[in-house]
Amino acid sequence: MTRPIFLLTDFGQSDIYVGVVKAVILGIAPDARIVDLTHEVPPQDIRAGAYALMTAAPYLPADAVVLAVVDPGVGTARRPIAVQVEACTLVGPDNGLLSWAAGVAITPRPPAGLPHPGPLPGGEGRGEGRYSAVVLDRPRFWLPTVSATFHGRDLFGPVAAQLARGVTLAEVGSPTEAIQQLPFPLVQRTRDTSGRLIAARGEAIHIDRFGNLISNLGAADLPADPVVSVAGRRIVGLSPHFQPSEASSEGQRPIALIGSAGLLEIAVPNGSAATELGAGVGTAVAVAAS
Amino acid sequence: MTRPIFLLTDFGQSDIYVGVVKAVILGIAPDARIVDLTHEVPPQDIRAGAYALMTAAPYLPADAVVLAVVDPGVGTARRPIAVQVEACTLVGPDNGLLSWAAGVAITPRPPAGLPHPGPLPGGEGRGEGRYSAVVLDRPRFWLPTVSATFHGRDLFGPVAAQLARGVTLAEVGSPTEAIQQLPFPLVQRTRDTSGRLIAARGEAIHIDRFGNLISNLGAADLPADPVVSVAGRRIVGLSPHFQPSEASSEGQRPIALIGSAGLLEIAVPNGSAATELGAGVGTAVAVAAS
Amino acid sequence: MTRPIFLLTDFGQSDIYVGVVKAVILGIAPDARIVDLTHEVPPQDIRAGAYALMTAAPYLPADAVVLAVVDPGVGTARRPIAVQVEACTLVGPDNGLLSWAAGVAITPRPPAGLPHPGPLPGGEGRGEGRYSAVVLDRPRFWLPTVSATFHGRDLFGPVAAQLARGVTLAEVGSPTEAIQQLPFPLVQRTRDTSGRLIAARGEAIHIDRFGNLISNLGAADLPADPVVSVAGRRIVGLSPHFQPSEASSEGQRPIALIGSAGLLEIAVPNGSAATELGAGVGTAVAVAAS
Repeated sequence: MTRPIFLLTDFGQSDIYVGVVKAVILGIAPDARIVDLTHEVPPQDIRAGAYALMTAAPYLPADAVVLAVVDPGVGTARRPIAVQVEACTLVGPDNGLLSWAAGVAITPRPPAGLPHPGPLPGGEGRGEGRYSAVVLDRPRFWLPTVSATFHGRDLFGPVAAQLARGVTLAEVGSPTEAIQQLPFPLVQRTRDTSGRLIAARGEAIHIDRFGNLISNLGAADLPADPVVSVAGRRIVGLSPHFQPSEASSEGQRPIALIGSAGLLEIAVPNGSAATELGAGVGTAVAVAAS
Repeated sequence: MTRPIFLLTDFGQSDIYVGVVKAVILGIAPDARIVDLTHEVPPQDIRAGAYALMTAAPYLPADAVVLAVVDPGVGTARRPIAVQVEACTLVGPDNGLLSWAAGVAITPRPPAGLPHPGPLPGGEGRGEGRYSAVVLDRPRFWLPTVSATFHGRDLFGPVAAQLARGVTLAEVGSPTEAIQQLPFPLVQRTRDTSGRLIAARGEAIHIDRFGNLISNLGAADLPADPVVSVAGRRIVGLSPHFQPSEASSEGQRPIALIGSAGLLEIAVPNGSAATELGAGVGTAVAVAAS
Repeated sequence: MTRPIFLLTDFGQSDIYVGVVKAVILGIAPDARIVDLTHEVPPQDIRAGAYALMTAAPYLPADAVVLAVVDPGVGTARRPIAVQVEACTLVGPDNGLLSWAAGVAITPRPPAGLPHPGPLPGGEGRGEGRYSAVVLDRPRFWLPTVSATFHGRDLFGPVAAQLARGVTLAEVGSPTEAIQQLPFPLVQRTRDTSGRLIAARGEAIHIDRFGNLISNLGAADLPADPVVSVAGRRIVGLSPHFQPSEASSEGQRPIALIGSAGLLEIAVPNGSAATELGAGVGTAVAVAAS
């Protein structure tokens, strides 16, 4: 069966760019199922794309092909690549976009919780996923004419379609040792003399549609009985869900919880934490033992 | 054949939430056709979601599975449910979201006009659709780990995928007598001594992308030769379509018509009635015999 | 196999209009693959829709059915039509929306570069595509009840689904000699006494999500060593891609290039040309030999 193809781009949906990529894919793999992860990555924001791809990866079907394009350097020397992570294949530019997902275990059905990609020495690395990568250097798998500005249509889309049809990684490109890494935002951890974690400091790495602040701190970064500090606010304890506790009537007060990505989130029940706190991507988020 | 799955959420399209739900569905039902109804229900606006679902329902294929998630209470005691309406199954939180659609006849091919859901005694009820409902209390149909904040991915999506594969309503949950009802916005009707309708008063329940005001008044709520009053304007008679009459040149004047949902709409030809009238959801809409 | 169906509308994605059209299609052609080209054509902007459709057309699969609806005149005398261009069929209102695409060669796999649709005598015509057209006048292929305001759901969608299932153009309607033409924005060309092109003047016809200004000037409209004038700026030479040259550090300076649609585009590396230049659709774009 044709492998399913997942798309993640910064193309938006007001132009026909995404539709044209799908048209090209269906011209090559007519029975491919094509699924949008998102096309609303902020224009040319590689880091936002890497975050989106990393959080989606654990839930992909085992045999997924992912076409990811956030590509400010299209037409320059940056390499087109494909990366195999277990049975899943990621296709896109070699600008760091794929690197966080390449470090995440893709273990569908049952999906495990998202492994925290930050806890490497120094906090700057990606996870130690096992992957193999190729440089896409075989024009026979591309459209006959490749524009300088739309490789999603002319190169990445056709390669993804070929992979979906059963062409192997080894056929579409030449092996490469390393892919471009994007530094994962630093988490600073403080431990007591016995080595016990007593505090950690990170930052908001995503604001979602509901205004939730999603940080780069995972459950393992939280001391027992944590107090969260963000944008001048202090939040005591974690909430189990997005609702204020029934006992209180603290409608507009922020809460902290481990969100669906396995990361510490700040939310305002029935409101927007980003608006309420005046916070955004990059806002510092700190936790300490109470 | 796998049943088609229709999605309706407030997840938006800027995050990967929708894509991840689809990924999980395809992991369980690899050949499912998944169709977006909309993901732009305003965040946590159950009523707007109920309206959208109700207007889409009459046009769904007979065997559709609908996954509807507008779920501010995710992780609290609100129940996850599935509702069978004729051959169609609705899956989502038991917070009223599904209740208007559950009261609508789903009669595809030929789709009948949308039955007006308002004309029950007191005007507050939903239609008297026949449905059966279950509480989703069988974890073997969910993902192994269910987060507190993303039941679309962890619970509703997997159940919808199982239903699409042919699992029955009785298998996925335990019968429940009643589902949570959402009051339908009140229509006040005035009749003369002979019982003839001479006036009705309702409100705008949706503003669409074109700026059209869609009211909760159905064709049966309109007296003969109606005059519509809205936002201080008076509109005499109904128009057959969105264009001004050719005889006149009343470009920016509002018109009234029975729209595609079978409800009274106010439009401004080649413009936005919402902007032109300064009106929104909740704006009063009255009709009277001329 | 069922033909793939591509959708292009101004319905937006905040309402359920698009989802309902897809539901109706799947009710008629249950295994149809349905692909969105875009639904974000500005409301009732026929010209923007015609541009989008024209640029997508060369990349469609050979057997595509395209359902295109930007239809301010829905319910009036404007005709519903279907247009056959090679093996591809376009379905929509006869208001000019389909006319630019009907003049473009649809030559998938390998897609040729987009033929420039402007170079007819006087510069106002569309290309000389060969097509045949029918008026959709056979209600047996529509929904039983056709509303006055939503032909996408009630008429065009059902016809597209029938075509996808293998019903022929001749079955769904009666032949018509001519379809409504939309004038293509004029390109003024200046030649020297030997007939050599030395200058051309056109306009921006689209602003894309990245803020790029896409003009109606094709590669054939550019003299050798062109200088582009737009919004008071002068751009010397064409760039090969969206990045500033490495030698310079001209981050926010506009560049000109032949974009992925085969048309002259103005871009600002890592920025928005539309914002930077204060330009929009209709802004004059001129080229001259340097």
